[in-house]
Amino acid sequence: MPTASLWSLHPQLDADSTAIADLPLCRVQLSNDANYPWLILVPRRLSATEIIDLDAADRARLMGEIDRAARALRAVAPCDKLNIAALGNMVPQLHIHIIARRTTDPAWPRPVWGAVAARPYDPPARSALVAALRGHFTPDALP
Amino acid sequence: MPTASLWSLHPQLDADSTAIADLPLCRVQLSNDANYPWLILVPRRLSATEIIDLDAADRARLMGEIDRAARALRAVAPCDKLNIAALGNMVPQLHIHIIARRTTDPAWPRPVWGAVAARPYDPPARSALVAALRGHFTPDALP
Repeated sequence: MPTASLWSLHPQLDADSTAIADLPLCRVQLSNDANYPWLILVPRRLSATEIIDLDAADRARLMGEIDRAARALRAVAPCDKLNIAALGNMVPQLHIHIIARRTTDPAWPRPVWGAVAARPYDPPARSALVAALRGHFTPDALP
Repeated sequence: MPTASLWSLHPQLDADSTAIADLPLCRVQLSNDANYPWLILVPRRLSATEIIDLDAADRARLMGEIDRAARALRAVAPCDKLNIAALGNMVPQLHIHIIARRTTDPAWPRPVWGAVAARPYDPPARSALVAALRGHFTPDALP
């Protein structure tokens, strides 16, 4: 696979989320939608659009990082169910959603995509969540 | 993890899909919804509801089987995008959707869940798809 140096986050993902950490394979972003604690993992691999575009070593890294990110998310945002998905129908850059669902959230039990309008975080709540998540991703947290 | 011998497919998944193969970890089912070629992988592990409920060896097996199933599906049903997701908001037994999406399918670009009513396969079309899929899963195909 190409080196990561030319990689950049898709502008739509960049607009919709906040950088949390750079794991060995994936950038970890927090969605800006306050309806659900929601991480997005983006493998830093040029032109990858499908999980099966990754080579076997990267697929293994991806599963490890999904596991790590899902545990971190659940630790800071207790939930009733995790939703983990690679869709990419709108944004072609490969990205994996990890969403902490509550049976009381506004979309439950539907999937979150398109269910209700995104809601911005109150800045203090967002700062606290970002800090808590970065703490779980030490030493890979981004400043 | 408990042995697989006591495992059984959740009745809702059983009603909605057709058995294709038993891989080392997962039962592979074909969704009965003809709107989209759609596989469902179900790890044969008692009480697993989350990917992170699986131990590391099973998570590695799961990624390998997702890769194998996604390639088989795309080989028999060429598509524009794969959608791969573990949701489980309705059926608690851990299961992973692998869906072959076309930009011409009735839900595109939305996720498929709840988008349009399920449509039954014409029996000959379903038989042909089941046979083609089982061919890709040899020697793990179910009769």
